[in-house]
Amino acid sequence: MNARERFRAPKKVELRDEDAGLTPLREKNGNGGAKQRERALTDELIGQVARFQEMLYASRKQKLLLVLQGMDTAGKDGTTRALFSQISPMGIQATGFNAPTERERAHDFLWRIHAHVPGNGLIAVFNRSHYEDVLVPRVLGDIDGKETKRRYAHIRDFERMLAESGTTVIKIFLHLSKEEQKKRLQERLDDPEKHWKFDPTDLAVRSQWDAYQRAYEDAIAATDLGHAPWYIVPADSKTHRNLIVAHLLLETMQAMNLSWPAPKADLAKVKVE
Amino acid sequence: MNARERFRAPKKVELRDEDAGLTPLREKNGNGGAKQRERALTDELIGQVARFQEMLYASRKQKLLLVLQGMDTAGKDGTTRALFSQISPMGIQATGFNAPTERERAHDFLWRIHAHVPGNGLIAVFNRSHYEDVLVPRVLGDIDGKETKRRYAHIRDFERMLAESGTTVIKIFLHLSKEEQKKRLQERLDDPEKHWKFDPTDLAVRSQWDAYQRAYEDAIAATDLGHAPWYIVPADSKTHRNLIVAHLLLETMQAMNLSWPAPKADLAKVKVE
Repeated sequence: MNARERFRAPKKVELRDEDAGLTPLREKNGNGGAKQRERALTDELIGQVARFQEMLYASRKQKLLLVLQGMDTAGKDGTTRALFSQISPMGIQATGFNAPTERERAHDFLWRIHAHVPGNGLIAVFNRSHYEDVLVPRVLGDIDGKETKRRYAHIRDFERMLAESGTTVIKIFLHLSKEEQKKRLQERLDDPEKHWKFDPTDLAVRSQWDAYQRAYEDAIAATDLGHAPWYIVPADSKTHRNLIVAHLLLETMQAMNLSWPAPKADLAKVKVE
Repeated sequence: MNARERFRAPKKVELRDEDAGLTPLREKNGNGGAKQRERALTDELIGQVARFQEMLYASRKQKLLLVLQGMDTAGKDGTTRALFSQISPMGIQATGFNAPTERERAHDFLWRIHAHVPGNGLIAVFNRSHYEDVLVPRVLGDIDGKETKRRYAHIRDFERMLAESGTTVIKIFLHLSKEEQKKRLQERLDDPEKHWKFDPTDLAVRSQWDAYQRAYEDAIAATDLGHAPWYIVPADSKTHRNLIVAHLLLETMQAMNLSWPAPKADLAKVKVE
C-alpha cells in the first residue's frame, strides 16, 4: 500500500473526473462486513500512528500539521474524531477556522493561522484553514484573480517556511459528491440531535457547488508541492475515508524518521530511593 | 453512586490518613477480571460523557475546566488519555504547565493560566496548573507564608470569576503513595521506551515528599469551594483511578443541565435541493 502515491493530487486536478464514491481499498469478497473490516483496520493503523506520535512527543524536534478541507458534511469533524481516538489530547491541537472575526480581518489572512501552527512534539489539525480565506472570497467575488494568485503565493511561502522549520505539512481534500452531501444534509434535518449542525447558509454554499469545485481545483493546483502535498480522498464512504486518511497519516509519520530520544542522564547510575 | 460526595476533599485534609491504595468501587467477587471490568465500565461512562460533551459543544453556552494535580507518575497524563478517547480533539484543549518561562515569570502567576481557560462549548484539561506556582515555590522556600496565603486568595478570586462567567471548575488531586511512585519510577528506568519520561530532577522532588504532601493539604484546604471543588482520588490503581474520574466527570456534566440547542432556523420549511 502506498497511499501517498495513490491519492496524491494529480498535476491538473479535475474534480468532476474524480469519483467521490470510489472505494479502492475495499476488500472484494464478503460484502456484508466491509465497513466493519475497514473500521478494524483503521483502528490497527492508528494504533501504529499513536506509537509514532509518542516518539514525536517525546523527542520534541519535529511537528506535524494536518490540514483538512472539504465541502460541508465532507467529514472534517468525523475524520478528526476517528483518527485521534488513540492519541492523548496532550499531543493534539485541533483548531476550527470559521469566518474571521473583526480583529482577525484587521490583519493579513495568515495571522490567525500562524497562531495555531504546532510547536515541537505536537500534531495540529486544521479543520478548515487558510485556504478558506482564498476559496470563499474568490467564489463570492470579494477578491479578483490577481489577489487570488497573490494569496496562493503567500500560502506557498508560508508553508515552505513551516516545512523548513521542521513541520511536516499534509493537506487533505475530502472529496464528497453533491448527491452524498444532499443525503447528509437531509439526515441533519431528520435527526433532532443533529439540528444544531444544520446552518441554512450551508444551502447558499451548496447552490454554488460548481464554483467551489473550480476554486478547489485552482487552490490545489497552485499549492501542491513536495513539502506540502495535497491528497484527494474520496469521501462518500465514511469508513473507507477514515481508512485512507489513516494510511496517509501513518505513511507520513513513517517517513519522519522518528525515534525515542536519548535519556536526560546516564540512567544506569540512577537509583530510586 | 455519588462520586462527587464520596471523593470530595474533607474540610481538614490529612493526606497520610487517605489510603492511596483504596479501591472502594472494585467489585468484591471475581478478582481476576476486576481491572478488565473497571476498564469496560469506564468506557461506558465516558461514552455518556461524550454525549454530554456534544451538547456542550453544540450549545456553546458553558465551559468546563478540569484541573489535574498530583505528584510525578500519579497519572495526570494517563487519566487525560483514558478519559477523552471518545471525544473529538475539536472539543478538548489539554495544556501542560511546566516551569514558567522567562516571559511568563515576568507576569503575575495567573497570566499564563488565563490564556488557556476554555471558551464556550469547550472542555479544558490542565495537566498541572496555577497550583504549581504556589506549591513549588512554597516547598523550595522561594515564597513565604504570607505570599502563599496571598496567592491562594488570588486563586479563589480567579476561580470564582471563572465560575461566575459560566465555567464549571473541578479539581482533582491524584493521590499516589510513595511506594507506588517508587515502583513507577523504577519502571521508567527499566523500559527503554519510557526513558524519555525519566527526569532525574523528579528524584529531588521525591526527596521532599512530605513537604509536598503538606503543601497540597494547605492548597486544597485553602481553595476547596462549592463552585471549584477538590476531589481526592486514590491513584495507586490505574484502572480504578480512571473509573473514579469518569464518575466524577459524568456526574459533573449531568449537573450542568445541558441540552441540544434550538436549530438556527425553522427547519420544517427547509428543503435540500
